[in-house]
Amino acid sequence: MAGVVITNIARADADVIDGLASCGVATVHEALGRTGLMLAHMRPIYPRARIAGSAITISAPPGDNWMLHVAIEQLRPGDILVLAPTSPCEDGYFGDLLATSAMARGCRGLVIDAGVRDVRDLTEMGFPVWSKAVSAQGTIKASLGSVNVPVVCAGAAVNPGDVIVADDDGVCVVSRETAAEVLAKAQAREANEGDKRARLAAGELGLDLYAMREKLAALGLKYV
Amino acid sequence: MAGVVITNIARADADVIDGLASCGVATVHEALGRTGLMLAHMRPIYPRARIAGSAITISAPPGDNWMLHVAIEQLRPGDILVLAPTSPCEDGYFGDLLATSAMARGCRGLVIDAGVRDVRDLTEMGFPVWSKAVSAQGTIKASLGSVNVPVVCAGAAVNPGDVIVADDDGVCVVSRETAAEVLAKAQAREANEGDKRARLAAGELGLDLYAMREKLAALGLKYV
Amino acid sequence: MAGVVITNIARADADVIDGLASCGVATVHEALGRTGLMLAHMRPIYPRARIAGSAITISAPPGDNWMLHVAIEQLRPGDILVLAPTSPCEDGYFGDLLATSAMARGCRGLVIDAGVRDVRDLTEMGFPVWSKAVSAQGTIKASLGSVNVPVVCAGAAVNPGDVIVADDDGVCVVSRETAAEVLAKAQAREANEGDKRARLAAGELGLDLYAMREKLAALGLKYV
Amino acid sequence: MAGVVITNIARADADVIDGLASCGVATVHEALGRTGLMLAHMRPIYPRARIAGSAITISAPPGDNWMLHVAIEQLRPGDILVLAPTSPCEDGYFGDLLATSAMARGCRGLVIDAGVRDVRDLTEMGFPVWSKAVSAQGTIKASLGSVNVPVVCAGAAVNPGDVIVADDDGVCVVSRETAAEVLAKAQAREANEGDKRARLAAGELGLDLYAMREKLAALGLKYV
Amino acid sequence: MAGVVITNIARADADVIDGLASCGVATVHEALGRTGLMLAHMRPIYPRARIAGSAITISAPPGDNWMLHVAIEQLRPGDILVLAPTSPCEDGYFGDLLATSAMARGCRGLVIDAGVRDVRDLTEMGFPVWSKAVSAQGTIKASLGSVNVPVVCAGAAVNPGDVIVADDDGVCVVSRETAAEVLAKAQAREANEGDKRARLAAGELGLDLYAMREKLAALGLKYV
Amino acid sequence: MAGVVITNIARADADVIDGLASCGVATVHEALGRTGLMLAHMRPIYPRARIAGSAITISAPPGDNWMLHVAIEQLRPGDILVLAPTSPCEDGYFGDLLATSAMARGCRGLVIDAGVRDVRDLTEMGFPVWSKAVSAQGTIKASLGSVNVPVVCAGAAVNPGDVIVADDDGVCVVSRETAAEVLAKAQAREANEGDKRARLAAGELGLDLYAMREKLAALGLKYV
Repeated sequence: MAGVVITNIARADADVIDGLASCGVATVHEALGRTGLMLAHMRPIYPRARIAGSAITISAPPGDNWMLHVAIEQLRPGDILVLAPTSPCEDGYFGDLLATSAMARGCRGLVIDAGVRDVRDLTEMGFPVWSKAVSAQGTIKASLGSVNVPVVCAGAAVNPGDVIVADDDGVCVVSRETAAEVLAKAQAREANEGDKRARLAAGELGLDLYAMREKLAALGLKYV
Repeated sequence: MAGVVITNIARADADVIDGLASCGVATVHEALGRTGLMLAHMRPIYPRARIAGSAITISAPPGDNWMLHVAIEQLRPGDILVLAPTSPCEDGYFGDLLATSAMARGCRGLVIDAGVRDVRDLTEMGFPVWSKAVSAQGTIKASLGSVNVPVVCAGAAVNPGDVIVADDDGVCVVSRETAAEVLAKAQAREANEGDKRARLAAGELGLDLYAMREKLAALGLKYV
Repeated sequence: MAGVVITNIARADADVIDGLASCGVATVHEALGRTGLMLAHMRPIYPRARIAGSAITISAPPGDNWMLHVAIEQLRPGDILVLAPTSPCEDGYFGDLLATSAMARGCRGLVIDAGVRDVRDLTEMGFPVWSKAVSAQGTIKASLGSVNVPVVCAGAAVNPGDVIVADDDGVCVVSRETAAEVLAKAQAREANEGDKRARLAAGELGLDLYAMREKLAALGLKYV
Repeated sequence: MAGVVITNIARADADVIDGLASCGVATVHEALGRTGLMLAHMRPIYPRARIAGSAITISAPPGDNWMLHVAIEQLRPGDILVLAPTSPCEDGYFGDLLATSAMARGCRGLVIDAGVRDVRDLTEMGFPVWSKAVSAQGTIKASLGSVNVPVVCAGAAVNPGDVIVADDDGVCVVSRETAAEVLAKAQAREANEGDKRARLAAGELGLDLYAMREKLAALGLKYV
Repeated sequence: MAGVVITNIARADADVIDGLASCGVATVHEALGRTGLMLAHMRPIYPRARIAGSAITISAPPGDNWMLHVAIEQLRPGDILVLAPTSPCEDGYFGDLLATSAMARGCRGLVIDAGVRDVRDLTEMGFPVWSKAVSAQGTIKASLGSVNVPVVCAGAAVNPGDVIVADDDGVCVVSRETAAEVLAKAQAREANEGDKRARLAAGELGLDLYAMREKLAALGLKYV
Repeated sequence: MAGVVITNIARADADVIDGLASCGVATVHEALGRTGLMLAHMRPIYPRARIAGSAITISAPPGDNWMLHVAIEQLRPGDILVLAPTSPCEDGYFGDLLATSAMARGCRGLVIDAGVRDVRDLTEMGFPVWSKAVSAQGTIKASLGSVNVPVVCAGAAVNPGDVIVADDDGVCVVSRETAAEVLAKAQAREANEGDKRARLAAGELGLDLYAMREKLAALGLKYV
């Protein structure tokens, strides 16, 4: 089943992708009906990065990073590498040389359900990574995997060309087909939050703002 | 058993609370006889926060943050929200809107044995959180929990009105009744450390400063 | 078996040690044939520290930090404390007073497969620590352990006098006997990377730079 | 705070205790309003044990089992030992000699948020244990803890004399004061289940038996 | 996105399904090109069960088992329930009453990336379950999920109607479309193993049986 | 560093090895001064196995079981295979065919800090395994490792020819050189336990049997 590279994948509109980035993970995840989130063990190597891009997916054997070199050739500006190992692994598949190469191709970042190394260099280069671990453990180049096939990464299904949104809250996957619709919902949600924020900041309670008191009483909440 | 809000809880003296904050978690924990510490998975979302406050406790179902809205009404300036889910959960119960509301009530921070989101916003707002996870996973508002009942949070028993102390070393719970006494012990401990620090910095060994050599020899320690 | 302090250990050359520090963990680990790395749960308490030094090893009972005082007397300038508990433990064995004492002896840092506390103070003092946990949990001084005996720390065998290299990527152990040889390999590796980095930055692909295409095709990689 | 043994604790009625045992953990936990359950890492060392008894609580330092000897003297027939370490620990605090001694005092079992050893012997002796780990790691007898003080064990608050119920599903804590009332609820629940079981076995659907269809439709469930 | 029940799903041939069951998980996983395996935390509640069946998938909120009742109506004889919570959860979604109902519909077992309870009863009933945890923690019936939608369960993507194979080695997913082809490969693999087993049992080495010596020597393996 | 097979290792006396097996892990670990124990995640695939044997050590890449074939040739009757992956891995390196081959060489069992599969077959064959995981995940044969080199397995240092003792309590390592001496201590310990067991069974308390009351009082233990 391994050993395939899909070279011609569809991508979402650049404007849609950038719009999703500016909404951020929490808002996009809500707009998705609270689906598509990767597991909470996926953490950024440095704070304050917020990106979105088209997924170049990689299925790679444990401890073998050969397919990253193959995947980099498939990158177009604005893409994000998404690597899922075929079995759980924390080895450091990716470091500053691969980041240099990926950046030269316009890659916006890496999402990897495994380890990453050279994190100080990556931080200085401004190449963001969300990973399961930081590990200097070296990898080999011996076996084939695949590029741009469907993968499950950190509990989320990812198809090549899906939009990946990542920030300090984690990583979220938006299917390419629904990306524009999800953006519209996310932006509506954002527009709606400004007023709420102002009222809450002024001391109004969520209990009143969201008209919760009656429902809580009906369920039997008792103040004593 | 769920569905209760205790509205009238006792709190420790503000001076005692602020004194405990300035001692910090490690010193307070020692003054408590090495008890009252939450488990080490409770980590701050940003470094260098150090707070103390009275606990407003929340028992909430997994994936349901409704009781946070109820709890915010119970906050007085100087309080800290303490949320324990009724079963293990890493969902993101709390974000920037709830933080805006809590800050408007004078809340000093959140301690949650679950997840938190919008951590970049919370960091910029200066609202500190100690949590088990960072997760964008959304929650619902469907079931009752309770506010200001005794809870077990991250392995520590917390009663409403207990003093919570939190900093980069973790989170510690001081019972309201003994808070003044614990502060006195903590301050005594601190006063005692200045001299030790100076002598150790000058090169004196702990072996001599604490007169350990004889005891070690008696137990059979051998230098070879 | 506990209760022994070896006072006269051999150390690697200071120049070799400093050379290894400037190569960093990932490069040294590669030069070692991808061995000697501690497990990925060993994380620095603050970013951007990069050190190397001679290991003063400590085998200590769970929750008992007495042997740290004994070990500090054995420190010479340039050494690193390496503590392995005799059973898994996350208690906070080490804080600012011990760090003050260790720094007075010229100690460069601590590597501990357990917990550390006072991390804010340690950060301000510039005393780097790699640990399994941050925990304020206090420890006692009741039982003997040993100093400068062989230990297993976070999955890596460490002998007293081995060279410890630690940075943002983790912690690596180089045997004292091979340290000079490993340094030579690490430096050769580094020299070799500059050219590669420039070519990758210019857009050349790893597939071409490393001549991988033929091998991948031979294994059956298919582009579709 | 350590160093106390409470010798005169109250216990629930023997009949109530035995009634709770025959209901089992899942039913008792439901009768408690879904509270009181220890975390799921507490597993039995052999299947099919089902016990209830009065808690003799033990707070013990990590890796130090001295207080177990102290606690055994406090046992009366029908009691259960409940040990919570003062910090997380997986060492083997308890083995066949302690079990021999506990059984001689009429002890029904051990609940320990740490490790146990000699599990083959314990199985052959029919002495049930619920633990966090099986580990041969030996412990020492150097420091005081306390017996029959309130503890938090595996996420549940336990007071001495509380009723512990344990079976293949885990461990549940019932406060001594409410034990009779909880038993009544648990038995009512059980009585109610026989009829349901028969109807479900005959092919009737829960959707109909519990009249769920209307509610689900009202919430918008769609069949396609 | 939640709130949908797909009522008319396709299933693989009964003979193919039963054939896959008799091959077992390890062989089927190999026939799949080493894909489709759920994570190793999915363990059976009792040993020696080996089943295969068509997946009735369930996406359920954390701590809410309502959709199990909905799913049971969709069961046909030979099906297996597959539940994935929408965020990580270890609560006990399933017990003996639900098992009674599922068995009455011909269900062969449950695969759940969460908790299960009444495991002693389930064992006596012969209803096999593979789960992440055993937990008595009760769940509620408050929110919608979906039935027979694509899910990710324990790291594996599952579509409704896919063939689930489960035994002591874990749980494997075979897509409905390729099930017959995978069975053929698995049976070929099995046929091939008998001869190997006999030769290995007679003392022939794998090094010779698989003609590995030359390749190992070519890679540089040295005997010293 | 990989790619070496040491063919001529020393082993301990068969009588000493068998003596250690009959003492069991907990007793041998105590006789070792409470050292040499592997971490508690190493669990047997079936209960009641108790073995000892000479270690044939294997260092293997993640997800690559080639070296097991190489190691089997090095087995002599009474040996135990000990596999440590070069980075953390839970894949199923070993199944019934390898077990058939190992048994044909007189191998007594496998200790593996990774996964194992075909556990039902292995149980029926009576081939005991202690592992970190059960997983059907297949492995490859692509890269060299080494056989009979020093390894760290599950936190314990193992040299080829060391005596491995394993039972329901876990796995312990005894250095070949001290094996006879450790056996003598273990047997002395056992001889001493019979009398204690009888006295404890008769109701004598450990507090009296071990004369602990005075010491506890001296430390300040208070009965209230």
